[in-house]
Amino acid sequence: MSTTTSTNPAEVRRLASAAERSFTVTASASPAARIGWLHAVAEVLDENVDDLVQLADAETSLGVARLTGEVARTSGQLRLFADVVAEGSYLEAVIDHAVPSATPPRPELRRLLRPIGPVAVFAASNFPFAFSVAGGDTASALAVGCPVIVKAHPGHPELSRRTGELVTGALRAAGAPEGVFAVVEGYEAGLALVDDPAIRAVAFTGSLAGGRALHDRAARRPSPIPFFGELGSLNPVVVTPGADAAGGARLAEELAASFQLGAGQFCTKPGVVFVPQGSALERALPEHVGAAPAALLTSSIATGYDEGVRRLAAIDGVSVVAGGVENGARPVVLAVDASTLAERQHDILTEVFGPVTVLVRYTGDAQGDDLGRALDALEGSLTATLHAAPGEEVAPVLARLENLAGRVLFEGWPTGVAVTWAQHHGGPWPATTSGHTSVGATAVRRFLRPIAYQSAPADSLPEALRDDNPLRIPRRVDGRLVLP
Amino acid sequence: MSTTTSTNPAEVRRLASAAERSFTVTASASPAARIGWLHAVAEVLDENVDDLVQLADAETSLGVARLTGEVARTSGQLRLFADVVAEGSYLEAVIDHAVPSATPPRPELRRLLRPIGPVAVFAASNFPFAFSVAGGDTASALAVGCPVIVKAHPGHPELSRRTGELVTGALRAAGAPEGVFAVVEGYEAGLALVDDPAIRAVAFTGSLAGGRALHDRAARRPSPIPFFGELGSLNPVVVTPGADAAGGARLAEELAASFQLGAGQFCTKPGVVFVPQGSALERALPEHVGAAPAALLTSSIATGYDEGVRRLAAIDGVSVVAGGVENGARPVVLAVDASTLAERQHDILTEVFGPVTVLVRYTGDAQGDDLGRALDALEGSLTATLHAAPGEEVAPVLARLENLAGRVLFEGWPTGVAVTWAQHHGGPWPATTSGHTSVGATAVRRFLRPIAYQSAPADSLPEALRDDNPLRIPRRVDGRLVLP
Repeated sequence: MSTTTSTNPAEVRRLASAAERSFTVTASASPAARIGWLHAVAEVLDENVDDLVQLADAETSLGVARLTGEVARTSGQLRLFADVVAEGSYLEAVIDHAVPSATPPRPELRRLLRPIGPVAVFAASNFPFAFSVAGGDTASALAVGCPVIVKAHPGHPELSRRTGELVTGALRAAGAPEGVFAVVEGYEAGLALVDDPAIRAVAFTGSLAGGRALHDRAARRPSPIPFFGELGSLNPVVVTPGADAAGGARLAEELAASFQLGAGQFCTKPGVVFVPQGSALERALPEHVGAAPAALLTSSIATGYDEGVRRLAAIDGVSVVAGGVENGARPVVLAVDASTLAERQHDILTEVFGPVTVLVRYTGDAQGDDLGRALDALEGSLTATLHAAPGEEVAPVLARLENLAGRVLFEGWPTGVAVTWAQHHGGPWPATTSGHTSVGATAVRRFLRPIAYQSAPADSLPEALRDDNPLRIPRRVDGRLVLP
Repeated sequence: MSTTTSTNPAEVRRLASAAERSFTVTASASPAARIGWLHAVAEVLDENVDDLVQLADAETSLGVARLTGEVARTSGQLRLFADVVAEGSYLEAVIDHAVPSATPPRPELRRLLRPIGPVAVFAASNFPFAFSVAGGDTASALAVGCPVIVKAHPGHPELSRRTGELVTGALRAAGAPEGVFAVVEGYEAGLALVDDPAIRAVAFTGSLAGGRALHDRAARRPSPIPFFGELGSLNPVVVTPGADAAGGARLAEELAASFQLGAGQFCTKPGVVFVPQGSALERALPEHVGAAPAALLTSSIATGYDEGVRRLAAIDGVSVVAGGVENGARPVVLAVDASTLAERQHDILTEVFGPVTVLVRYTGDAQGDDLGRALDALEGSLTATLHAAPGEEVAPVLARLENLAGRVLFEGWPTGVAVTWAQHHGGPWPATTSGHTSVGATAVRRFLRPIAYQSAPADSLPEALRDDNPLRIPRRVDGRLVLP
């Protein structure tokens, strides 16, 4: 494995300045041009899938099958953002005609969203394609005409460089301007990027500690910029007594598959699972927990995992249900009573990245105080999942889960994120810092700002706002939504 | 005038906790219920217009005519937000049906926006109705089911209390839950509000210094929350040589009316006006500038104005074109050459709240380097205005103005903000901290976050996402926008 290099601050400044210059072109690039850029990047990834997967597997140990699927997801989401651009609703075009008879007379107003400028993207460790150099943040920024500078993740430097070369070449061949895309490496380069006056937003997927530091840094700038971060998530799962009675053994098998998927390194890993006392699920779970050490992404992640698991297991009232904490990076299931959780929430409810999950045993039913108090101890999450039997009363627990998470699942498991129009990836702090992150059609909105044109002559209006609607997009006209 | 009182921190905590409890009701309140709340508040303002205007005029000196119009605008914007709720697009309902044949099989996903929780609103000094206790921030938060606690502005305490009583009574009579609305007073109460764990967002209209402090405080919380602030804006105006030749004298009269409107205390006041050297506008302007001292909102604003004007007038190269800096709170026009501006931008380009504007004289035409360099020295603004003659080449200057501002006006003046679907109030820092602020239909989006339901049984779905579309709202179904 090669070592990481570091882009020096002067080079970061040069790249940010080039990105800013390219923005004068990308800000007014046609939808067709931007669609062409996205398709070119998707194609170059698909064409080079075998080489890229080989590089990725050597650096991440995530396996050829999973990585091959992730390349398909990554090119697929580039194409979804191209569809979003083609459809045109994302521009939020609104036209209010003048009302000269109003008091005071009302001028004509036409509004749309325009790109904010160069975006800094911090790549994640755990998805070397879908949340990395050519991932959802990059795709959604380029889609709307924002130049991108990616801070590569040090966990996969060779893959980052190779992906960067392919993306740069594809964009150039598709006619995108020089400077529209670059990759930098190293901790100091990342800080310089967040501080650079040319950068207008930061997108980040990573740890709570790292994300919080960059969030604070972006907010402290002389001219603050938005920080769109995905920082950490426990992804609670609630299994009702009815669901456990109906299929606890099956749920155990599914849970085991979900929390160990990708060696437990999914941001949507179920990290805390609420089960009835004496559940069939808990009895059946150990047989599905792997005995072998997991191959984690980096040695520092493996060290952090071992420390995190040992810390959890040492808490009074926490027991080891399966696996062990004595060896390096072994899958582990811990358990604790709900009443203990409510008392020791800050110790227990901390995300540990890797193949560990915590069962929380509650007494009573799903509307009971024991489960309710334990759920009230949780912070925000990307997802919350409910397993209930038909006919069980779930409204109170559902209301709690809706307050906690950005995605609520019924009878499923949170790992696996379908990339569709309705999907998104976000949740209350500390899951994310804003409603939207990099997954789903509305990811583009992070990099747009509204502009209203008052009494503009037709030839000074963007195409999206002209009377004849040359882009054939949905628009709101005098308050009414009109389809093309 | 009565003195300001201060709400103590324990009372702030009690009110925030009550707001949080009320959110369990407001979060699931029907659109019809919320529309009822907004209409009730609008009606109580209209019914009490005479009393309210009398209180407001005594505390702000803004005059009965202006204040009566502002009450109408305020009740009108409450009704616009009710229309936004009724129309339903603001929910961004999206339904993606399951695709079992996909690899991997794609689950059903249904998404909408839901309220984020209690919102703290910091009222402004200069619009005691439209940007105060019952203003656009309060209206847009209540519209989507977010409880509101207003930090009253100390410039109009009696009016704030009276408006608070009327709003509280109207909401109670309309069936809104206890705790959904409150008003607090005092500097320390404002800080306690920003720190309170129950508060999920802050909306602010005020000064750059005050807004920056609250922005930083919101970002520093253990659990950071978004800060939606409108902080300061110079609202540049560009007059081309052609426009000056065609109607410089008329433009002078209009500019004088605009920068002195409301004693120069509009956030959209034209604070810097780019004119050709030797312009007809500059020659004609002095006769339209008032000689009498302006009645500013508060004594501290008057002191700040005098200091600000004296500081500007003392800068090398800045001259007084009309009015004077020796007396208290007199309207003033200053002038400076574009080349000087580019050198001394940080001294000259600072908003001074009150009836002062700065003419910046440029040489050459509107595409020339002299104007271009001066425009490049500007920071973000709420508005930017272009006065040009038919046939003049304006694309380069327009591109600069689009980068600078959230609203671009042609042949008009930025004071006066029509409240319509296409309107918004925002611009790059320091104008605002985000794309949206309190004006226009999309103001509601600040207080919403997305939630996706995966494979939810029909009876666990919000009405907006049910197959039969009982709310009859526009929705995106399998990627296609469908009107009801």
